[in-house]
This record gives sequence, structure tokens and C-alpha cells, in this order.
Amino acid sequence: MNNFSFHNPTKIIFGEGQISALAKLLPVDARILFTYGGGSIKKNGVYDQVIKALAGKTFFEFSGIEPNPHYETVLKAVEIAKGKKIDFLLAVGGGSVIDATKLIAAAINFAGEPWDILAKNSPIKSALPIGCVLTLPATGTESNGNSVITKFSTHEKLAFGNSLVYPQFAILDPTTTYTLPPRQIANGVVDAFVHIMEQYLTYPVNAKVQDRFAEGLLLTLIEEGPKVLTQPNDYAIRANIMWAATMALNGLIGVGVPQDWATHALGHEITALHGLDHAQTLAIVLPTLMSQQRTTKREKLIQYGKRVWGLTNSDEEKLIDVAIAETKNFFEKMGAPTTFSGYGIKDSLTSTLIEKLIQHNSLPIGEHRDITAEVATKILTAAA
Amino acid sequence: MNNFSFHNPTKIIFGEGQISALAKLLPVDARILFTYGGGSIKKNGVYDQVIKALAGKTFFEFSGIEPNPHYETVLKAVEIAKGKKIDFLLAVGGGSVIDATKLIAAAINFAGEPWDILAKNSPIKSALPIGCVLTLPATGTESNGNSVITKFSTHEKLAFGNSLVYPQFAILDPTTTYTLPPRQIANGVVDAFVHIMEQYLTYPVNAKVQDRFAEGLLLTLIEEGPKVLTQPNDYAIRANIMWAATMALNGLIGVGVPQDWATHALGHEITALHGLDHAQTLAIVLPTLMSQQRTTKREKLIQYGKRVWGLTNSDEEKLIDVAIAETKNFFEKMGAPTTFSGYGIKDSLTSTLIEKLIQHNSLPIGEHRDITAEVATKILTAAA
Repeated sequence: MNNFSFHNPTKIIFGEGQISALAKLLPVDARILFTYGGGSIKKNGVYDQVIKALAGKTFFEFSGIEPNPHYETVLKAVEIAKGKKIDFLLAVGGGSVIDATKLIAAAINFAGEPWDILAKNSPIKSALPIGCVLTLPATGTESNGNSVITKFSTHEKLAFGNSLVYPQFAILDPTTTYTLPPRQIANGVVDAFVHIMEQYLTYPVNAKVQDRFAEGLLLTLIEEGPKVLTQPNDYAIRANIMWAATMALNGLIGVGVPQDWATHALGHEITALHGLDHAQTLAIVLPTLMSQQRTTKREKLIQYGKRVWGLTNSDEEKLIDVAIAETKNFFEKMGAPTTFSGYGIKDSLTSTLIEKLIQHNSLPIGEHRDITAEVATKILTAAA
Repeated sequence: MNNFSFHNPTKIIFGEGQISALAKLLPVDARILFTYGGGSIKKNGVYDQVIKALAGKTFFEFSGIEPNPHYETVLKAVEIAKGKKIDFLLAVGGGSVIDATKLIAAAINFAGEPWDILAKNSPIKSALPIGCVLTLPATGTESNGNSVITKFSTHEKLAFGNSLVYPQFAILDPTTTYTLPPRQIANGVVDAFVHIMEQYLTYPVNAKVQDRFAEGLLLTLIEEGPKVLTQPNDYAIRANIMWAATMALNGLIGVGVPQDWATHALGHEITALHGLDHAQTLAIVLPTLMSQQRTTKREKLIQYGKRVWGLTNSDEEKLIDVAIAETKNFFEKMGAPTTFSGYGIKDSLTSTLIEKLIQHNSLPIGEHRDITAEVATKILTAAA
């Protein structure tokens, strides 16, 4: 196990009816900017619950944060927050709303062009406090310091991470997820699954707790993911998926172990270029990346096959083949095709994708920094 | 899954050499009371590392905190802390030192007799900040708000819990545990194991993440526990045990699930009356409690047998028998006898133990509150 620091200060409030706890979680006399997306929270009752909990508080609304949230939208919110002298941000929605709100929090006191926080890793000295109500289990952003933002004007999708933008609290009510369309459910499960794999499927460092936790989360998603599609109003299934998705990327399973994140790096470029959902890009990349990297990931692939898929093949090469096939099959079963053609993309524009990767200084990638332009090309080509 | 809140603010700094991080973790200009135990940290080099890291800081030492730390000792430290105008407590040692330091932190501004914090659950309004360097993986106290203290004059052993006494940081360097005597290693592994069981072996509420995490920690202790006795200087084994013991009682695996804690309630009385080590009492009580409660714990006992011990018996009663036998065998293998007679105690004084339990208002106990004086008597009698 490698040395590590771990500190997750986000308070989780989990369960049905917990949005009513908002009132006592928010600072007295706060001037709140309540951020949300395209209005789905108005249809499923979450907006009304939030408004009720905010009774007596000073708050303003900022809506219209889109999926793969735009930098341009963040800038609009920053202007409003400055004008209204906002001192607390309340994000209500899925990962996009929370990610955008993190950049709002970081940008508000930032001297200069806030895009530099992502593009140049420019340091931030302070951020507005954030609280959130999560309605889409997927990204783990509700209890981490990460954010992914897309600059619409240039199609660039970049990430930043900072301990200052951990939400102070996150309310997770599984019933808020009942009305999600199947595609978003699938996206959430696939996204959480791949977050775990990025931290797990590398090479062994004898970190038994982290491995067992990662495997436990994968098993939970494999068991509950397909069920949620046929039993959308089952509370226990929703609760298990929601909690697994949070634990998948709150930092815990990644402490003291090597991490990969090449699937995400490739996936971000695919979203920026082709407009696919984040999780769809992960479903495309991960299986062929597993095949391409089967030598360096060999030991963990075998462990994954045995412990997560219960495989007992004595031929280890065959076992790895089956483990990869099961992974593909799981994504497909969730409703996420695992090839470009599955989304009707006949030309993946691989060379453009690689150019963008190089431009973002992110090659070579992977836990061994061995995914060069050449290797990435093979991965993308195999996913045609 | 039941509704829950989870908030663990302790920053973990894990790995070899991390004691040197102390200097930057401590507040500038703090007046520090450095608390420790009987001097083992002077033999294993930890004391020297701490003193080196404290160079330039204002600090005072308080040593002599005993195993099953005494209330009377805590009071002495409180007097010194008041006299020296201490504003930060640095606990260096095992669970006893950290537990005692938590009561010092809570007692220092407490109006009245601090024993009431434990005996009458009297509320505390503030506590001094605490940091710790853990040298004995066992209790999880390094990242929770719990403390167990013994009043020497009356042989009473009571607990309190408060979010104000979570350590701000905990340094976990596995190499500091190399010099532990086998009995303390065994105690630590058994203690952590039973902490997990108290939160896991109840009844199912379809909390898949919590179950898988608990099982992962149990498997880690089962795999690594016996190894550490024969390979005491193996870093990876020490690291896995240390991290598992912290995760066992930092609140995470217990969120949203029923909890038992009857083994601990019975065990505390045994320590108070017979002077056995805390973990030794748990090794005595848990197996007979599992047998006695096999009906109400049936489903989880079967899950435990299958997933943790890999049992495949088609006869479920037999499977439960073997799961209990494996648990006993594991404790014995770690060097912790599982009967009173194993410690040379011919008369367990069961009726006195039950009287004390009643006196501490802790009966009936267990996740169903069905362990009455009569049931507790059966459990203790069966452990003769």
C-alpha cells in the first residue's frame, strides 16, 4: 500500500424525506444561490421540497445548467452571484449542476480568467461554501472536490480538483431518482462502475481493504443495476445504487493504490467531439482498454474475474476474456452500447481525438503512463 | 437501508515516515499537551520522532495513561492542562491514550463532575482539539467520537460519544506497530473483528454496500491476522491490519444498518470485574452470543458463513455451526482464548456481572433489545 492522506469533510444526509433537513444545514442569514438544471426538479417534486425547506431564507435561483455543463453558463452564474452578494451555493440536481456550482464557487473570488483554473491549473485561494441535494447517482461529485466543465465555444472538456470545493453537506434521497429516464439510470450506473475500475483495475499493491471495498461496490452495481431498470420504484435498489455511486468516487477506495483514469481521458474527448453522454463514452472505451492493457493489468484482471464475476476458468487467458466480455455485456444490459457504431457513429475521427488528447497534455496516460498516442489509437480503433 | 447521517471529519495521514507531517498539522502557536502511556513509545522510537516533529512548538508532556484508562488519571491531566493553558491535545499511543485524551478534551471546560459525561450522558458544549499518532491498530478511536473510561475506585467502565471529540487528524504509520507484543497484536485484531461483527451480524436491511464493506474488512483481518504473528516486520500485512481496524469503527460500515453491541456491553463488565483485556472479553462473549442468538441472527449468520468463510454446506444449521466454530478458531489462532477457563477464571461471577449490567441501565441489549438478564446469563454461562 502506498502512503496517502484522506480527508473527506462532506456530511452525508441519506434517506427518504431528508430534503427537509436543508433548513438546519444552511447557515443562518446566508444569502443563497440555488442552482439547478433544465427543470426536471420542477416535475418530480424536488423543487417544491427545496423551496419549502428554504422558507424564511434569503435565496435567488439560477437555472439552466446543462448536461456537460458549459463554462459560459458558469460565467453567467458568477455575475449573478456577485451582484446578489451570494455567500452560499446550494446545488440541486445531478453531477452537472454540482460540477458547475463548484466552478462558480471557485471563480467568484478568482482574479483573472476562471478557465485558467481548468486549463492552466491556476491555484484558487478561496471558494464559496457549497451544499447539495443530489438527484442523479453517478459521478460522486456530491462528496468530492472534482469538477468537469466544457467550454462550449471550443468543445474543450477539462477537469479541476480542489479541497476547497468539497460540498459541506450532501443530501441523498433515493426517492428523488425514481423519475429518472432509463438512459440516465444507465449512465449513472456505468459512470460509477468505471470510476471504481479506474481505481481498482491497475496492478496489485497488496491493499486488501481498498480491493475488497472496490469489489463490493462493483458487485452492488452488477446486482442492482439491471434490477433498477425493471423495478424503478424499489427504494432499496435505488438506495444501494445511490450509496454505491457516492462511495465509488469520494476518495476512499483510491487511497494508497495506483489509479488509471485513461478511460476517462479518452471519454472526455469523445464527448467533446461527438456529444455522447459521459457514461456512453466510458462504455465504449473501457472494454477495449481492458483488452489492450491485458498484459500490464493481468493480475488485477484475474482477481476481478474471480471475485467480481465468480469465474473459475483454469485457463487464465480465457478467464480474462470472459471477464472483459462480462463487463461489455453488463454495460449493454444497462442500455449503454459499447462501440461507436452502437451510437450510429460510423467514423470515430480517431486521429482528431488523439490530437485533442495531445493538445490537452494528457498523453501518455494510464497507471504506467504507457498509453501513448499509438496505444490510444488502437483502443479507439478497436471500439469502432 | 435505514436513513442516516454520516460525517467523519478526521484527516488520515497514512504510511511509513508520516510522523514527520506533525509539524505542519499542528496549529501555529498552539500550546500542546502531548499525552502518552507507559513508555513503550520511548522504546520503539516513536517518542523521538514526535519530539523531533515538535521542535520549536510549545508543548508539555503527560505520561502514564494506563490500559483501560482510569478516570482518576484523566482528572490529573485536566488539572495540568488547565494550569498550562493548553489549547491542543496530541495523543500518541493506542486506544487507551486516545480515549483518555478525548475525555481530557471534553472535561476541560465542563462545569461539574466530568464523570457525569459518561455516567449521566451530560452534554458537553465544547472540547479542546485533538490530534493523534496511533501505535496500536484496534479500537478505531483515532477517527471516531467514542471513548471508554474506567473509574478505578468503583471498577465501572463506561463509554461516551460526541462529535466534538473526533480527532482533527490521525497519523497511522504501520511501522510503529512492529514492536507490539503478540498479545496486543491479537487484541487489536480481535477487537477490530468484533467491532465489525457488532455492526454486521444483526438482521438484513438490504444494505449491500455496508455488508460488502464489512465482509471485506473481516476477510482482510482473517487473511492478515494470523500472518502478522509469524511475520511481524512485514509492512504490507501491518498496513492492511491498521487500515482495516480504522475502517472497522469510523462509522462508515454502521450507517443505515441495525447494530448490536451486546458483546461489548457484556465484555466491559468482564474487564471491570476480572481485569481481562478488552479484546479477550470479546473473544469470550461473541461465539456464545452467536449461538444463543442464532435464531434472530439466522439470515446474517448464513450470509457470514458463505461470504466470509466460503462455506457451502447445504444444511443451513450445520453451516451456522461451522461459521461459529470458525470464528472461535480464528480467535484462538490469534492467541485469544474463547472461554473464561482459558484465562484461568474458574468462577465467572455471572450473577455479579448481570447485576452490574442492570446497574448501568444497559439491559435489555442487542439489535432487538432481546438480551435480557436471563439471556445474558445463558451467554456468559455457556462461555465458562
